[in-house]
Amino acid sequence: MTDTLTRYKEHLREIGKLSSSLALLHWDQRTHLPEKGHAARAEVIGKLAKMVFELSISDDLGRYIEELETRDDLSPQDKASVRVVGRDYRRHKAIPPDLFEKFAIARSKSETAWEKAKAASDFAAFRPHLEEMIDYSRQFAEYYGYKENPYDALIEDYEPGMTAAKLKEIIAPLRDALVPFIKRLGEDGTKPRTDFIRGSFPEDKQQELSLHALSAIGYDFHAGRLDTTVHPFTIGVGPGDVRITTRFLSDDPFSGLYSSIHEGGHALYEQGIPDELRWTGLDDGASMGIHESQSRMWENMVGRSRAFWEFFTPITTGVFSQLSAAAADDLYRAVNVVEPSLVRVEADEVTYNLHIMLRFELEEGLINGRIAVNDLPQLWNEAMDRYLGVTPADDAHGVLQDVHWSGGMLGYFPSYMLGNLYAAQLFAAAHRDIPGLEEDFARGEFSRLLTWLREKIHQFGRIYDPIDLLERVTGEKPDSKYFIDYITQKYSEIYKI
Amino acid sequence: MTDTLTRYKEHLREIGKLSSSLALLHWDQRTHLPEKGHAARAEVIGKLAKMVFELSISDDLGRYIEELETRDDLSPQDKASVRVVGRDYRRHKAIPPDLFEKFAIARSKSETAWEKAKAASDFAAFRPHLEEMIDYSRQFAEYYGYKENPYDALIEDYEPGMTAAKLKEIIAPLRDALVPFIKRLGEDGTKPRTDFIRGSFPEDKQQELSLHALSAIGYDFHAGRLDTTVHPFTIGVGPGDVRITTRFLSDDPFSGLYSSIHEGGHALYEQGIPDELRWTGLDDGASMGIHESQSRMWENMVGRSRAFWEFFTPITTGVFSQLSAAAADDLYRAVNVVEPSLVRVEADEVTYNLHIMLRFELEEGLINGRIAVNDLPQLWNEAMDRYLGVTPADDAHGVLQDVHWSGGMLGYFPSYMLGNLYAAQLFAAAHRDIPGLEEDFARGEFSRLLTWLREKIHQFGRIYDPIDLLERVTGEKPDSKYFIDYITQKYSEIYKI
Repeated sequence: MTDTLTRYKEHLREIGKLSSSLALLHWDQRTHLPEKGHAARAEVIGKLAKMVFELSISDDLGRYIEELETRDDLSPQDKASVRVVGRDYRRHKAIPPDLFEKFAIARSKSETAWEKAKAASDFAAFRPHLEEMIDYSRQFAEYYGYKENPYDALIEDYEPGMTAAKLKEIIAPLRDALVPFIKRLGEDGTKPRTDFIRGSFPEDKQQELSLHALSAIGYDFHAGRLDTTVHPFTIGVGPGDVRITTRFLSDDPFSGLYSSIHEGGHALYEQGIPDELRWTGLDDGASMGIHESQSRMWENMVGRSRAFWEFFTPITTGVFSQLSAAAADDLYRAVNVVEPSLVRVEADEVTYNLHIMLRFELEEGLINGRIAVNDLPQLWNEAMDRYLGVTPADDAHGVLQDVHWSGGMLGYFPSYMLGNLYAAQLFAAAHRDIPGLEEDFARGEFSRLLTWLREKIHQFGRIYDPIDLLERVTGEKPDSKYFIDYITQKYSEIYKI
Repeated sequence: MTDTLTRYKEHLREIGKLSSSLALLHWDQRTHLPEKGHAARAEVIGKLAKMVFELSISDDLGRYIEELETRDDLSPQDKASVRVVGRDYRRHKAIPPDLFEKFAIARSKSETAWEKAKAASDFAAFRPHLEEMIDYSRQFAEYYGYKENPYDALIEDYEPGMTAAKLKEIIAPLRDALVPFIKRLGEDGTKPRTDFIRGSFPEDKQQELSLHALSAIGYDFHAGRLDTTVHPFTIGVGPGDVRITTRFLSDDPFSGLYSSIHEGGHALYEQGIPDELRWTGLDDGASMGIHESQSRMWENMVGRSRAFWEFFTPITTGVFSQLSAAAADDLYRAVNVVEPSLVRVEADEVTYNLHIMLRFELEEGLINGRIAVNDLPQLWNEAMDRYLGVTPADDAHGVLQDVHWSGGMLGYFPSYMLGNLYAAQLFAAAHRDIPGLEEDFARGEFSRLLTWLREKIHQFGRIYDPIDLLERVTGEKPDSKYFIDYITQKYSEIYKI
């Protein structure tokens, strides 16, 4: 008779192989699938997704987990696997199947309603769906269980171990630092020039720039590829195959470049997960926030650094002759403009976190019944004014802008902010561990940073929970001070205040 | 309780969806998969293929088929589905699983041995493996069952209803016509000039030409796409998604074009299979031979016709300025050079079938024990001399050139020849039914031919067996006279004999 551990591993490998197939179906759907193939593709994806889901909640798997949890002869890696797979399993099983099915139908309607409501800027049309989504989230939170705050049960999906209380502790000093700092930048700062990067920048040249940057930071094109899509993404199709996409704006030479580096950062993480973790349940990022820390570090702390532009300016001016008069310092400043704006996905690194805080405060209030959906648009607009000094002209550019809530993804937003904070905290640790890192960047040399990330973070996949991992690497729990220091130093200099 | 017919259809849809996923994995493997992703991809493909195979031999499916075969309330389409699915099922079940498993292992070794043996032109190294493959084929034939000739049981996989006896009847007049005709072309004919199409032809320009031709013949780019691969192929990924690939040779402006049109012909067939046949077991070509008839008709009878070049010459000279002095007649003749050669895949349409006859005669002799593997190289070389007047310098360019036998695919080769014969017979019928077809082509108008093929062939998928289908459309059983007439008329004129 085969050993339970062997059967457990075989079960996870089966899930892994089907998930790999599913990932390819998704990737192709967004990159190469011909128009008329979409209807059938949706059915094929539905079928495979159902198979993966059924395997992930199967009674067999439940029995393997239960038995393996009692065994003390497992390797540390197998122990970690059983721990995270068991946690996922119990969450999946916690929701009664018929409730989940009702939710899936409601979610689909809600997403469609949101799309229409956003197009028409009609919050009232979306309101009942949002109420329903919040109601489901509350029910799920009860089934998952929590100690203090039902919100904690929801965030667990994205940031295991994080809670609303911890978030509030992290957020308070961040808000207190950022809101006045942004005000000061606007009132006393000298905004960098950007007029010299206006013009028309052909896609193939932009692509050349992206490929150059990706190769430089260590993205392995033998284990991935770059394609273009409307919405950039990273997808691990399988071992040795982590693909990224980007999109180029013809009037902006750097928007596509930073999309590429951002996705490249995600991909470096996944390319760095070792083979022995593949298809064990551990072959992913420690959390959404840790994943985002990698993309944001490479995009902003590396890619938007002065040292990077010392390296990258001759390459850029070589590709775009119309920029040949630009000095490294001009380009560095031009890609670091701060502009309080209405839409999260267009926000710079200084204002971005305020968009997230606003969302966190609102959704935490919604889940706890302190906020009524009906009051949401007004509360949104008030918070936008309070944090960023801007007011949406309509709900399409306000409360309706994000897809997340329409899909019942309450608890997701904080990961975006945590990504920035973790990135700063990790980057500070990297600087302590590796003297002369900026000099590396200025020479186009990023391998010491990548090696450090591989050793400290990537190699562990999901073995450690995010907060534990951060503490192992930096010696501290999540703390916003590193991000505050990074932002205030960098932008005080850029804005000459 | 769900009706058996419903469950049967659901079962086939499940196979269809997994097969679609599998097709995408294969396509991607040959077009976009990064180098380091291949090892894992092989495992993912293995897993999906096993799942499809298990579903296709499941006891559930067996019970559905058995019950549905006794029912007289099925629609004609459902009846046809049960007939072809039942036939496939019984063939799959006929082979004991442990024998098939042993065969799969032996085949894998045989294919590897063949690759090495071909590279070293070392037939002796491949001989034991080939003997084993033939032994398996004989065993399979016994399990499948046959009336006269064990070879009939093998060809059934590719051409249901075809037999060695029928093939011999078809072949005899073809051989008697072709062998002396080719000799005459060589001795008395005037070989067309090809010196003016030497040079260097950039890949992007060749691609432009291919896209133009594919659009003209009616390939739907909203339901497919063209990529480049080392070995061109067509793959139906799913409904509304039939993809083709081609390859371009930098020193030959038309090799890639004809690969594209050939695969385009296969794809037109699959794009023409109606939605109601999808995932019913009927959504494929009637046979390998009928499939090949579509690719060969578009490639040779349409694409290498004088009328086609009247249409396509201005397009070609527009794309390749170095050909601007070429007249339609020059290009028409240049793409129709006949050259007895050693290698099947490089053969022109006149000599091609002789390569197949030789293989058929040898493999039929091997299966029936009239030929010993040991004698194969000598028999091969003698037949090459007899049929084409050429002698391989070594076995790599002789008996070792094709992969098929190494994989145990005995009985496959005749489909290539039947494709040519069916094409000529169908093309003659199309000409009878549609007056002025050549004038259409000369204007770049191919829709009347395509509509005819859709109505006569494509819409039926696998509903009819190939010989029945041919008889329905042309009023006759397979007959080589149409091909002989086509070849002798066309090439007597081109070679001025």
